[in-house]
Amino acid sequence: MYCLFIKEMLTYCLMNKNRLEAFSDGVIAILITIMVLELKMPHGTDWASLQVLAPKFISYITSFIYIAIYWNNHHHLVHTVKHVTGAILWSNTHLLFWLSLIPFVTAWAGENHFAELPVAAYSFVLLMAGVAYYILSKTIISVHGKDSVLSTAIGKDLKGISSIIGYAVAVPLSFFMKEISIGIIIAIAFLWLIPDTRIEKKVKEDD
Amino acid sequence: MYCLFIKEMLTYCLMNKNRLEAFSDGVIAILITIMVLELKMPHGTDWASLQVLAPKFISYITSFIYIAIYWNNHHHLVHTVKHVTGAILWSNTHLLFWLSLIPFVTAWAGENHFAELPVAAYSFVLLMAGVAYYILSKTIISVHGKDSVLSTAIGKDLKGISSIIGYAVAVPLSFFMKEISIGIIIAIAFLWLIPDTRIEKKVKEDD
Amino acid sequence: MYCLFIKEMLTYCLMNKNRLEAFSDGVIAILITIMVLELKMPHGTDWASLQVLAPKFISYITSFIYIAIYWNNHHHLVHTVKHVTGAILWSNTHLLFWLSLIPFVTAWAGENHFAELPVAAYSFVLLMAGVAYYILSKTIISVHGKDSVLSTAIGKDLKGISSIIGYAVAVPLSFFMKEISIGIIIAIAFLWLIPDTRIEKKVKEDD
Amino acid sequence: MYCLFIKEMLTYCLMNKNRLEAFSDGVIAILITIMVLELKMPHGTDWASLQVLAPKFISYITSFIYIAIYWNNHHHLVHTVKHVTGAILWSNTHLLFWLSLIPFVTAWAGENHFAELPVAAYSFVLLMAGVAYYILSKTIISVHGKDSVLSTAIGKDLKGISSIIGYAVAVPLSFFMKEISIGIIIAIAFLWLIPDTRIEKKVKEDD
Repeated sequence: MYCLFIKEMLTYCLMNKNRLEAFSDGVIAILITIMVLELKMPHGTDWASLQVLAPKFISYITSFIYIAIYWNNHHHLVHTVKHVTGAILWSNTHLLFWLSLIPFVTAWAGENHFAELPVAAYSFVLLMAGVAYYILSKTIISVHGKDSVLSTAIGKDLKGISSIIGYAVAVPLSFFMKEISIGIIIAIAFLWLIPDTRIEKKVKEDD
Repeated sequence: MYCLFIKEMLTYCLMNKNRLEAFSDGVIAILITIMVLELKMPHGTDWASLQVLAPKFISYITSFIYIAIYWNNHHHLVHTVKHVTGAILWSNTHLLFWLSLIPFVTAWAGENHFAELPVAAYSFVLLMAGVAYYILSKTIISVHGKDSVLSTAIGKDLKGISSIIGYAVAVPLSFFMKEISIGIIIAIAFLWLIPDTRIEKKVKEDD
Repeated sequence: MYCLFIKEMLTYCLMNKNRLEAFSDGVIAILITIMVLELKMPHGTDWASLQVLAPKFISYITSFIYIAIYWNNHHHLVHTVKHVTGAILWSNTHLLFWLSLIPFVTAWAGENHFAELPVAAYSFVLLMAGVAYYILSKTIISVHGKDSVLSTAIGKDLKGISSIIGYAVAVPLSFFMKEISIGIIIAIAFLWLIPDTRIEKKVKEDD
Repeated sequence: MYCLFIKEMLTYCLMNKNRLEAFSDGVIAILITIMVLELKMPHGTDWASLQVLAPKFISYITSFIYIAIYWNNHHHLVHTVKHVTGAILWSNTHLLFWLSLIPFVTAWAGENHFAELPVAAYSFVLLMAGVAYYILSKTIISVHGKDSVLSTAIGKDLKGISSIIGYAVAVPLSFFMKEISIGIIIAIAFLWLIPDTRIEKKVKEDD
């Protein structure tokens, strides 16, 4: 009896959000891991054959950090969700779609020593992922109200908007001065490496 | 002591269903992600080499949306399960089997610019997945009774049945007018993009 | 305060077993899914090129069912675990190791139209997985005592032992009458398709 | 009402740590599994073609055991975490990064019959993973205080430090006496095969 009550309660309370988190974690964990499958073995066993891999390693590390950043911030973002709606589910799926293309553009950019079009494609995927993250955060706020934890924590979301502008500049720039595009991508990564303490602080105050 | 009691209780209460969900989420998360491994890098770095990828991208996006729809609806379906039986476990495994073939038919259809047989195979896998989903929902209803949440929420399941009919038409049609088959597949995707509010509503009423 | 108490309690109570299940589920979900990556696309788009895939599909389906059976029974087995020890963790890892070789032997047997050595290798991996499952169940019983749920439910484990004998016969037989080996493998799969109601019943009685 | 209270409570209490564990488990489960994708099928079906695979199997087994060891010890380490901070999250991501390179060096070393440079690369990745694990444990201790469960359990961490020294010796040695490097790697694996009973004991005492 008691068992059934507990089961019902926990089921209705937790499942929704748990599965949203579990599914997102699953997809992100797989994305961060399968990129290593694109690190094709060098043909030889000397230093030269390892050097050939250098650009692939650099793009692997950059993408690994980017996906880890998204996981980290997604973690904080979904933490504030109280009601999972269809709109939140599909905004989340939209974000996962763009993240799922990161291994593809990583391999392409690494394979071709950061040629113009691959760098533009890489920037474009990051731009769309940034936009999708922005839409997801706005969707969560619209569901939970302007006075919710997330809304007051994020405020005007200068960090999110400036990243999107940065990527939007990096896409066309890739065709003229790709070094600057790469610089912008790395700079934004550093900007986000610091976890989103805005939400973290707010949640703590409310505990 | 208390700890042991809690452990026992939660173990017997939650494990069954949790693992069914966790395993299904795991498989679906992997399926939606490994499809990107079939997006082989273009050989060049110019726009032409990116254009060659267009049909692959289209089939990737379609399959991504289809698997996301299945995850979303599976989520709502399993939400109503109270007792996990052997029949439910195997109906679920049957559904996962057909979903597991989606990356294969996606790659085949995309690689061959939507030739007749690959489009028929794609429709066939969607047909069998639709049938498997229908069997799973019927199995859950038969275990939980005709007055259960799921049963009253789904009713006669017109949406499920009409999708199955649609796919069943699309399979043979692929050999004569494949454009219509592709149209049917896309139309059914839109039909399902709206989350299954029937179950959602019913669950809310009961909360 | 209360929050901290709940956290501590649940942490010490559940984590151990949850992670054992979660990790096993993760590995098994990935194994069952990555096998589809070995289903290489046919080169053409006609029926002949699909027929060439037939043996690969047959081995894919067989392995899919086998891994699903292991997941299903592993689920029931670990359900009875109360204390996770180092011996249980490593017996479990040992089982996962042999299961991890199933995609490899599946692809090899399917690619070579069920030649002698690949069939023997397939049987051998199933044999070792059966032995590992037997060791795991014995390890769990030895930790929980002879009067535990699992011990009384499994009894003398005739099903487990007869499967092991079946595989042990199938391995050498593959070199002389491989058709019989394949028959044995399929027969044992059917034997296990029925979920392990012995444990299921026992657990229900104790609820 | 009650439901909302439970939800809030559990959400703020558990999510953080659960997701850290779930994400790490996901990544480690994928790493241990995708290595089998590098076990490319032999071209023939005779014993000779299986023998060619021998070095790949040996490196597969070694890496499988190494990743299982890391999962096992990571399990015990994170078990003691009470507060998840940004520093812990990124130390954990840093560890996962080095673990993610294990499939790559495994395939390279196995493919080339344990040539000098691949063995050195293998040792180097293990060295960096060892250092990352050490940093993670120090980070957790610095967050939880010198009197925490982990701190008193690990003590001076002779096992961790001696492993790091072992790998640091194995890297340069690979170029002169690679057999000794391989011996060191296998010896350290045996050293860690025993689960970290130091933490296990301490946690039990506190239960």
